[in-house]
Amino acid sequence: MGPDSMPSSRKTPNGGPGARVGAASPRTGAEPAAPAEADRRARVIIENVDPEIDCGRFPVKRTPGEQVQVEADVFCDGHDVVAAVVRFGRGDDLNEVRMKPLINDRWRAVFSVGDELGAEHYTIQAWVDRFATWQRDLRKRVDANEDVTVPLASGAALIRGAAERASGEDASRLRGIADRVEAGDTRDALDEELAALMLRYDERPHAVAYVRTLPVLIEPERARFSTWYEVFPRSVTDDPNRHGTLRDVTGLVPSIAESGFDVLYLPPIHPIAHTNRKGRNNNPVSEPGDVGSPWAIGAEEGGHTAIHPDLGTFDDFDALVAACRDHGIDLAVDIAFQCSPEHPYVKEHPEWFKWRPDGTIQYAENPPKKYQDIYPLDFECEAWRELWDELASVVRFWVDRGVRIFRVDNPHTKPFRFWEWLIAEIKRDHPEVIFLAEAFTRPRVMERLAKLGFSQSYTYFAWRNTKWELEQYMNELTTTELRHYFRPNFWPNTPDILTEYLQYGGRGAFMARLVLAATLSSSYGIYGPAFELMEGRAAAHGSEEYLDSEKYQIRIWDRDRPDGLRDLVSRLNRMRHQHPALQTNDRFKLHHVDNDNIIGYSKVSADGSNVVLCFVNVDPYHVQAGWTWLDLEELGIDGSRPFQVHDLITDAHYLWNGPRNYIELSPWIVPAHVFAVRTRVRTEQDFDYYL
Amino acid sequence: MGPDSMPSSRKTPNGGPGARVGAASPRTGAEPAAPAEADRRARVIIENVDPEIDCGRFPVKRTPGEQVQVEADVFCDGHDVVAAVVRFGRGDDLNEVRMKPLINDRWRAVFSVGDELGAEHYTIQAWVDRFATWQRDLRKRVDANEDVTVPLASGAALIRGAAERASGEDASRLRGIADRVEAGDTRDALDEELAALMLRYDERPHAVAYVRTLPVLIEPERARFSTWYEVFPRSVTDDPNRHGTLRDVTGLVPSIAESGFDVLYLPPIHPIAHTNRKGRNNNPVSEPGDVGSPWAIGAEEGGHTAIHPDLGTFDDFDALVAACRDHGIDLAVDIAFQCSPEHPYVKEHPEWFKWRPDGTIQYAENPPKKYQDIYPLDFECEAWRELWDELASVVRFWVDRGVRIFRVDNPHTKPFRFWEWLIAEIKRDHPEVIFLAEAFTRPRVMERLAKLGFSQSYTYFAWRNTKWELEQYMNELTTTELRHYFRPNFWPNTPDILTEYLQYGGRGAFMARLVLAATLSSSYGIYGPAFELMEGRAAAHGSEEYLDSEKYQIRIWDRDRPDGLRDLVSRLNRMRHQHPALQTNDRFKLHHVDNDNIIGYSKVSADGSNVVLCFVNVDPYHVQAGWTWLDLEELGIDGSRPFQVHDLITDAHYLWNGPRNYIELSPWIVPAHVFAVRTRVRTEQDFDYYL
Repeated sequence: MGPDSMPSSRKTPNGGPGARVGAASPRTGAEPAAPAEADRRARVIIENVDPEIDCGRFPVKRTPGEQVQVEADVFCDGHDVVAAVVRFGRGDDLNEVRMKPLINDRWRAVFSVGDELGAEHYTIQAWVDRFATWQRDLRKRVDANEDVTVPLASGAALIRGAAERASGEDASRLRGIADRVEAGDTRDALDEELAALMLRYDERPHAVAYVRTLPVLIEPERARFSTWYEVFPRSVTDDPNRHGTLRDVTGLVPSIAESGFDVLYLPPIHPIAHTNRKGRNNNPVSEPGDVGSPWAIGAEEGGHTAIHPDLGTFDDFDALVAACRDHGIDLAVDIAFQCSPEHPYVKEHPEWFKWRPDGTIQYAENPPKKYQDIYPLDFECEAWRELWDELASVVRFWVDRGVRIFRVDNPHTKPFRFWEWLIAEIKRDHPEVIFLAEAFTRPRVMERLAKLGFSQSYTYFAWRNTKWELEQYMNELTTTELRHYFRPNFWPNTPDILTEYLQYGGRGAFMARLVLAATLSSSYGIYGPAFELMEGRAAAHGSEEYLDSEKYQIRIWDRDRPDGLRDLVSRLNRMRHQHPALQTNDRFKLHHVDNDNIIGYSKVSADGSNVVLCFVNVDPYHVQAGWTWLDLEELGIDGSRPFQVHDLITDAHYLWNGPRNYIELSPWIVPAHVFAVRTRVRTEQDFDYYL
Repeated sequence: MGPDSMPSSRKTPNGGPGARVGAASPRTGAEPAAPAEADRRARVIIENVDPEIDCGRFPVKRTPGEQVQVEADVFCDGHDVVAAVVRFGRGDDLNEVRMKPLINDRWRAVFSVGDELGAEHYTIQAWVDRFATWQRDLRKRVDANEDVTVPLASGAALIRGAAERASGEDASRLRGIADRVEAGDTRDALDEELAALMLRYDERPHAVAYVRTLPVLIEPERARFSTWYEVFPRSVTDDPNRHGTLRDVTGLVPSIAESGFDVLYLPPIHPIAHTNRKGRNNNPVSEPGDVGSPWAIGAEEGGHTAIHPDLGTFDDFDALVAACRDHGIDLAVDIAFQCSPEHPYVKEHPEWFKWRPDGTIQYAENPPKKYQDIYPLDFECEAWRELWDELASVVRFWVDRGVRIFRVDNPHTKPFRFWEWLIAEIKRDHPEVIFLAEAFTRPRVMERLAKLGFSQSYTYFAWRNTKWELEQYMNELTTTELRHYFRPNFWPNTPDILTEYLQYGGRGAFMARLVLAATLSSSYGIYGPAFELMEGRAAAHGSEEYLDSEKYQIRIWDRDRPDGLRDLVSRLNRMRHQHPALQTNDRFKLHHVDNDNIIGYSKVSADGSNVVLCFVNVDPYHVQAGWTWLDLEELGIDGSRPFQVHDLITDAHYLWNGPRNYIELSPWIVPAHVFAVRTRVRTEQDFDYYL
């Protein structure tokens, strides 16, 4: 039995009678231990509310129109029937939706958030439903052939009370019913319609409001569903001696868009220091002509609000932003809050850095490793207010130039409270801005960054390569509390991460990882040219660094190389746009396959109409085959009839039957099926999926 | 590696420097979303604290001297070392104990509560440990043969800072070390003793206090460890025509005490109404001479503060309380807040009852069942304040007569807030009072009653008879959050509950249930004479009511009958007193047995020195045998050597070896082993156990 997802028509600005009983302001904490004198008669308990992140300290995250399924334990003493509603909305203008009982005092309701970005909230109100209790008891009395004269008189009194709170037609209707009930009409008394009417004018005596009002943050759709392409602008060139420019990147935009990407991410585009500049392959000594690492930010031309002269001008940047916008793409820039020794801050604000006893500035180090080309900012310095304000102004600078997505470099090495403050500062005026946390670190740290405001997070996906690892990780992301606030962004590679799996797995590995990233997670990205061209050469055995890494030199990429993966990438991105099931992780489910190298899973769209079923061979070296045991109910499939699965990669169709079906996947062809499942009579909409 | 359970010597009244950063008063809620300007530099996060019941709304429960193991996720940005302490105690006078890291940013500490009854609290404080960070880094630098001149100078500055906060010998010692460190002495700099000294004078810069202060309620030891015997006073007689009296009960006390019981519970002892009095076997019509149900409280002689004239006088009552006290027994009385139609309240306070439209008082009913002999009190009536105060005065009345344990009848049919208020009212002046909730109802309701203040709770134990059911239930009680606030009291029978298992299982069933109750739960009780004499005759097929139930008539019990279970009862109670492992449920563990009719489990005392291992055959009809697979680590057994198990029921000794051992249990002899496990060289104390 599904929950009632239709909000009732009842609007209760400022709450109905008694609505404020026991109510607490948003963000306050535990239920008051000693309720006010006047409230002690409130008999209903509301507890174990889900979702509720850290006692309401942090919001659950949604995008416009998405649903929130709220559950709680609701009960009272004795045998009375209770009623409960979820109240939700913005400010004091709340809607409400009735909760329905599940089992063991658990109640549930579903509501949809609005289209406006920013904060909504929800809470629960519950009360003893005197009329429902009376009706239930009357039914038992009638069944037992009791004399119901006195009970009918009690009921008539309840109905008359409601009539007084009603007006117009309802009031006179209720009065008429009360008369008939008092006169002995049990059929009218037990009527379902009367129950609905009474609900509307229910007194809600001694109603209890859940002690906390819980926040929901509504972010742009792209926070949930996005497809990222990373490119080093200086490598957008066909001549290793010609530094690529922002204009070159602008030239690339149409083909990126055609491939189905909607976020184009550039590593830092700021002036690069000459002091201690790193040479090719991270050589501590650079040669003349070496371009250095874009993360060594700051030179005499400027710092975090300047553009590297070799990349072009602000006009070029504006043109790039405009080209992206024309193609439905967001340009994402890098926020790396650290300085080279040449950064203007070093001279202008020496108080923002840590000083060593020998009078030099403390460079970055993780003993015994030293990074003399990087000065970390001291977020705890005495002048922290000025420093933090300056850093916020950097983000605002790029927002004002049209950037609305920021990929934040190593946020876990700066204070949590700094990010919480900064993100709130920016989103106050620009709720459309999205921050991606590039924190590859311990689980609690990554979770906290997501809770405090990062819209998306990099993940451990790159290192989850076996079926077992992927299953565990997907369960963690989609079945624990994480699903409400941690939006994963799956990257099979980045300029810092070339996994052993990709180094040694060859084409089959790249294809498998691409399909997994694109179908497991509603947001994914690739470090583009290197991935498309299956670059797998590592700097050294046991290293995850690329040989001839673009971090330290210009690389030439021939994206049109016929053996590249561009076509598969485009195909996957197209199906992501056509299939709503792939645009969310809400209804992810694993399916059994009796082969430890084949992972099977499905995704279903919010309305249940779109179903995608995937199988991926994670062994890049061998053909693998096995039998499925599908969860047909999850897929919406009638097990008594054959059903069609349509492979969106190869366009092949298969007629399957029941939960048990054979699959065989080869790393030499395509190591995956991405099936659209036809589960019912086709509609116009279905045809769209198969165009 | 065990947690550091020794509180440090440091006392910090009102907290150390920075201790109040972000602090919140007890019982407040979520972490402030926008910390005060001055606090934003606090870098450490404290979250997922355990135990924490409903965001700190309810206390965890302990008895004097018991331990509380506190865990939390504690971490900060970057690579700095963090330090954390649990601060605990009463009021502002807090002790602290250092937390130790486990894995994945999880930290743990253990503290012991004090001996004084009432409320203590605990919270966590954490900060970046600059000296520990410096020492860790220095170690790496030294290992890497770096020049450490500058780092040593930084460290010397830290040490000098501590010297300024220190005084006396410590101060001069720290100054001396600082000089030597600055001069290049790395051995002194890396010294563990220096670390301990620095800890003591740590500045705790930007320390963070966990946002909630969490309550612990300290109740008398008997709230945790108690052995109950229930008897109907009017049946303490050897002649069915002579109504037993309180004096007769006083005569029974020595033998109850000798059997090892420490709580003697009497059903209501108040005057019983004549109107609608129930006859034998719940007959709606009574015969002359029928004694009626003690729960039909109130007659012309009085109500809840009167004694039934046939039972005796208040002098008799006082004598009984005194006799119990002399034998180390608590007398528990029944609190059943309901009235017979003859109760004085009906005339004196008609406003405390619900009235029907026909001008009569609403009797109790659960349609279509009617209980015309019971008038429920209306806790929601307009005069609720007066009613509630009156009911509190009833409890106070009995407290003033020396009663400190109350068995509360059907608390789940009265409002939760009433109980929360009442129990707090009583415990304010009498923290030694214990309330047992007789609520056999849905799980969430039973849990809530325990949270809001009931010290002990009846359970589903009576209906958990198979091995699987018992294992599930014990896991629920001992491994979930319930273990912190829900103290189970296991009753194999009550005057209302004669299970099918006992009706049909015979002697083997009674023995098995007795051993299970006495060893699974640190509190248990029996409806005494009926259990000892294995009364198994039900009122009807399918009913759990006794035939000729004592609830409606006087019964004669020959407790000296030679086939009775008194000897086994005494033996079990004696071992419960001799073996601390059986006095708590904290270290309960199931052990594998390859027979679905034999359950195996162990209990270990808090200090690990006392280990009891039990096996019970839950099939009352057949001999069952099987092989164990013991968790030797839990039992503290060295698997490489044989070990002795001593059966405390039969006094037999067995030499066992490794995890796999044979057991065979017969319902015709004793269907259980209760083994004391000898795990180490005997000490004086061990000998005590085996006397």
